[in-house]
Amino acid sequence: MTSKIAIVGTGLVGRAWSIVFARAGNNVSIFDPMDGASQKALDLIDQNLPALADADLLRGETPAAVLSRISRAEALTEALDGAIHCQESAPERVEVKAELYKDLDRLAAPETVLASSTSGIPASKFTEGLANRQRCLVAHPINPPHIIPLVEIVPAPWTDPAFVTQTRRLMEAVGQSPISTTREVNGFIVNRLQGALLGEAFRLVQDGVCSVADVDAAIADGLGLRWSFIGPFETIDLNSANGVPGYCDMLGQLYYDLAKEQADPREWTPELVARINDERRAALPMDQHQARQDWRDRQLAALVGHKKAQAKKDGNS
Amino acid sequence: MTSKIAIVGTGLVGRAWSIVFARAGNNVSIFDPMDGASQKALDLIDQNLPALADADLLRGETPAAVLSRISRAEALTEALDGAIHCQESAPERVEVKAELYKDLDRLAAPETVLASSTSGIPASKFTEGLANRQRCLVAHPINPPHIIPLVEIVPAPWTDPAFVTQTRRLMEAVGQSPISTTREVNGFIVNRLQGALLGEAFRLVQDGVCSVADVDAAIADGLGLRWSFIGPFETIDLNSANGVPGYCDMLGQLYYDLAKEQADPREWTPELVARINDERRAALPMDQHQARQDWRDRQLAALVGHKKAQAKKDGNS
Repeated sequence: MTSKIAIVGTGLVGRAWSIVFARAGNNVSIFDPMDGASQKALDLIDQNLPALADADLLRGETPAAVLSRISRAEALTEALDGAIHCQESAPERVEVKAELYKDLDRLAAPETVLASSTSGIPASKFTEGLANRQRCLVAHPINPPHIIPLVEIVPAPWTDPAFVTQTRRLMEAVGQSPISTTREVNGFIVNRLQGALLGEAFRLVQDGVCSVADVDAAIADGLGLRWSFIGPFETIDLNSANGVPGYCDMLGQLYYDLAKEQADPREWTPELVARINDERRAALPMDQHQARQDWRDRQLAALVGHKKAQAKKDGNS
Repeated sequence: MTSKIAIVGTGLVGRAWSIVFARAGNNVSIFDPMDGASQKALDLIDQNLPALADADLLRGETPAAVLSRISRAEALTEALDGAIHCQESAPERVEVKAELYKDLDRLAAPETVLASSTSGIPASKFTEGLANRQRCLVAHPINPPHIIPLVEIVPAPWTDPAFVTQTRRLMEAVGQSPISTTREVNGFIVNRLQGALLGEAFRLVQDGVCSVADVDAAIADGLGLRWSFIGPFETIDLNSANGVPGYCDMLGQLYYDLAKEQADPREWTPELVARINDERRAALPMDQHQARQDWRDRQLAALVGHKKAQAKKDGNS
């Protein structure tokens, strides 16, 4: 498959998207309104590609081949011209996106999908007044998208479902793992799930039930192991010889009782946030924070590689 | 370290615990009141050990060495005699445990820890009237404990904290990853966290927001990747250059708004459970369910192996 993809906004997320589309064989045209930003992005991509090749994250392509498919557009029109999909990764401010989408909608052909990388702003907040708003949607990656395959596609109330389907197919074609909602919801899917878990995690610490480190171990040495290759539904399905109904017969009442205890929304107070941060800083001083972020990204790449190798071994790939 | 450990109840969980303690060098005495059960358990352990050795799950010990440390007790007294720790894995019925603990408390020396593998019954429900109830607690594994390191230690209101500490140390010494609560809470830690996530997962499906498969992908191809080696707190700490406070500044309000939407405890109705099961059965027919459970256990073992190899490579082991 060779299509043209427009990347608008060339920060960390836009650069990662450029790699996702280019390593899958597409021609990627990148644009950033800030002077020199897109050239800087190209330079950074060039510098990063060899390490990604070493980690087998380029789908077997050479850094030179991937780089050759990414070009700098001088103007937004040039980036959008002939693009089937525009992935917007502009700053997370609704007024910035609202202004930008006026231009995108005016300049892009009506069949070009305008997909926002926003992690939290529903598309309805910045696309309402547009002439061709039916092709606007959110395509939110989990950072960094060239390592983590998940992308959640969330339509606005006026998005044509055909564009949701088309975007799912595009994301599958480039090797991502797309999911989608039937309608616009706050927090999309990922942050709704993460928020539910974090709410209980903060509550456990605030109520003095256990430490920050013990909550983290509960997931990283326990539940998170299964969840890294099967989701929560398959987990419970496989935890009973009778599948989901067997599991719910055993534990449905316990979980309902817990849900009633947990129906207790709390603001994360500065005191609580400081307490959690204090425990984290004791475990990881701030001067090691950046190194640990780099370590996390290496671990993520290694884990994705491990999963691919396992799938190959099992013939499940 | 060589101590004597008593294993009471020799089903799947009791057998896995026997392996955990024996591969770490302890002498394990197993007892089950059912005729022939402990001999059958020994036979099953014998059959399973070679595969565990192949998967590098015996800490470098031979199957013969591990098996030689596990012996069958003819009576409860014999299993408990000289044991520093008794791991009870009897059926999950409070009346069964209440009867059993009367015997355990009478027969075990007062300093022997009586630890229950129960996944949901607080120790206060079956230890209240005992003479030496201060040494009773829950030590709940995530199945199977010879693969998954997490064990959560939950005291009853009358448990002496020194026994919690002692049990944490024992679990660390045998290579498990212990966490503990300061007091008894419903669902302990793991199921409180799992329940919070499941509550939102069921809600998303019930409200027609997305499919069961898409919830699973959101975790297995997204959030679960990080959570398999760093927990939810370290995840948010590393998601902002300013650590936990930076993350909460960005997203605290979104999560509080979501928490208010999610403060909506719902029973899992038979209709909803059936709908979820239907989607699971379309993906995994029941005649492949057992094979998929075996696949999951192989994946878990491979993942734990991968994490150990990564830790060694990083010098973080």
